[in-house]
Amino acid sequence: MCGSHGSLELAYDEYRNQLLDAGLLLGSGVSGVYGLSGTFEGVIEAFEKLITRHGSPLNPEVMRFPPILNRKTYLSTDHIETMPDLMGSVHTFKGDQRAHLKLMQKKHADEDWTTELAPSDVMMVPAACYPLYPTAADSILPEEGRLVDLRAFVFRHEPSPDPARMQIFRQREFVKLGTPEQAHAHRDYWLEKGQEILTSVGLQVEAIIANDPFFGRGGRVMAATQQEQALKFELVTAVASEEKLTAISSSNCHLDHFGKEFNIKTSDGNDAHTACIGFGLERIALALFKKHGLDPDKWSPEVRGILEI
Amino acid sequence: MCGSHGSLELAYDEYRNQLLDAGLLLGSGVSGVYGLSGTFEGVIEAFEKLITRHGSPLNPEVMRFPPILNRKTYLSTDHIETMPDLMGSVHTFKGDQRAHLKLMQKKHADEDWTTELAPSDVMMVPAACYPLYPTAADSILPEEGRLVDLRAFVFRHEPSPDPARMQIFRQREFVKLGTPEQAHAHRDYWLEKGQEILTSVGLQVEAIIANDPFFGRGGRVMAATQQEQALKFELVTAVASEEKLTAISSSNCHLDHFGKEFNIKTSDGNDAHTACIGFGLERIALALFKKHGLDPDKWSPEVRGILEI
Repeated sequence: MCGSHGSLELAYDEYRNQLLDAGLLLGSGVSGVYGLSGTFEGVIEAFEKLITRHGSPLNPEVMRFPPILNRKTYLSTDHIETMPDLMGSVHTFKGDQRAHLKLMQKKHADEDWTTELAPSDVMMVPAACYPLYPTAADSILPEEGRLVDLRAFVFRHEPSPDPARMQIFRQREFVKLGTPEQAHAHRDYWLEKGQEILTSVGLQVEAIIANDPFFGRGGRVMAATQQEQALKFELVTAVASEEKLTAISSSNCHLDHFGKEFNIKTSDGNDAHTACIGFGLERIALALFKKHGLDPDKWSPEVRGILEI
Repeated sequence: MCGSHGSLELAYDEYRNQLLDAGLLLGSGVSGVYGLSGTFEGVIEAFEKLITRHGSPLNPEVMRFPPILNRKTYLSTDHIETMPDLMGSVHTFKGDQRAHLKLMQKKHADEDWTTELAPSDVMMVPAACYPLYPTAADSILPEEGRLVDLRAFVFRHEPSPDPARMQIFRQREFVKLGTPEQAHAHRDYWLEKGQEILTSVGLQVEAIIANDPFFGRGGRVMAATQQEQALKFELVTAVASEEKLTAISSSNCHLDHFGKEFNIKTSDGNDAHTACIGFGLERIALALFKKHGLDPDKWSPEVRGILEI
């Protein structure tokens, strides 16, 4: 292990243990899967209300999707191609009593009993905006486009000792569907607004061009293109480590990717462009605890005032 | 199809279509999986706050778990034995580039590509209290026991045309861990309190002994025992159908089932007993829409006052 990697692991362990000892995180025995205390959840709720106060004047449509989505919707995106290692496919038992006996025998013999399962009709949601697009499929947008306010749990199979890299977490998003100009303006508006909101609660963030972990050789090409076109920006800050900053928000232009896939048209008959801003709620809470201490009662009156806690 | 079954299906279709037309539910193409509008979510939030106002004076520990739990925790319960057909096992892709090629070839050939996946370390949460028990494992409870306030998405693979039978929904729960007397008193307290809360918002509920859908032949025995011992009560009301009432809350004594399984002891050295009350949040919102109409702005001032909306 090289020195730098070692110190990163140490930083992850140290912050994770602090959070576990303080009872803010509750261990589950699986890396990156935690329960949250009422205090932790309270910080998320307060930050969400702050986002709502900034977002409401724009009068978005509010939609809340569950953590699972139609398997067909999942397969309409290119996620299985570009990030298969992060997916969550939900399987269940569809057999009769005799098949159940076999399942239980395998389980008791410590064999892989999941071979007796069948895929269900759903997958874990990989990004909060995925379930939105089929609801807009085969539609023509109004001239001003559509603005949607989303929140959902998203799943990413990436077990990690970094407490900020959870396998399941909530994204609060604002998505614009419209012309290229409308989508672009949305991303730029929220990139600035996001910095303003995060700075207002004492988080120093820096905007960088994102570098998503696309899978395999083809993925390296995609990552290079994403960077070259500067489509996605992340707002990064120090969470568990000062050395490796953590993205707590991201702002992404999808071009006509989803518009084409789901046949969403602008009023002038072109494929709709989409763009989204996402706030990683657990990460933002973790950044606040890192910055201001583990007890929100002791945060500065200024920060508490802005969060209305 | 017998007449009664037909009229039930009609009632489900009618109410589901009303909800979809009003935009309160957003269809996903999968039975029992919906997005919710801001109005729907607002009713859930308001009802949750009402529960909090009733529960907070009891000073519970607040914990919030995500929709997935450790596969080992799942297997420590008897869910795979008693309700395997409801389970959700999360699988992912763990292969290399070559294995990915095979996955994609199967997908393009419309073959079952999920055979290329491997089980992850997590399962969908089947009941909001399951992730709690391992956090209390191998512990001795204080003399007064412990009271925990939970909310989680739970998954049940039971696709249904009944809008009130969702495959994923939120349970708000209060769980008591303690002596048999403490657990019993908790269930009885909340059975009454639950009725009081639901009645206060205009829902006529009836307490009945529950009849859980245990799997197979062994399941019929379990169901009979559960009924005989009167361990679990449900508060039922008319949601989609007047004919077949819907459980919107349930109150369950687990005896020493989880105490034994997770080695949780009372201060006098015995296996802890546990009991829980759960509120089905989506179902309660659906019951409120059915009772008071689809527009909360038009609900009576009394109900709006109690919900503080």
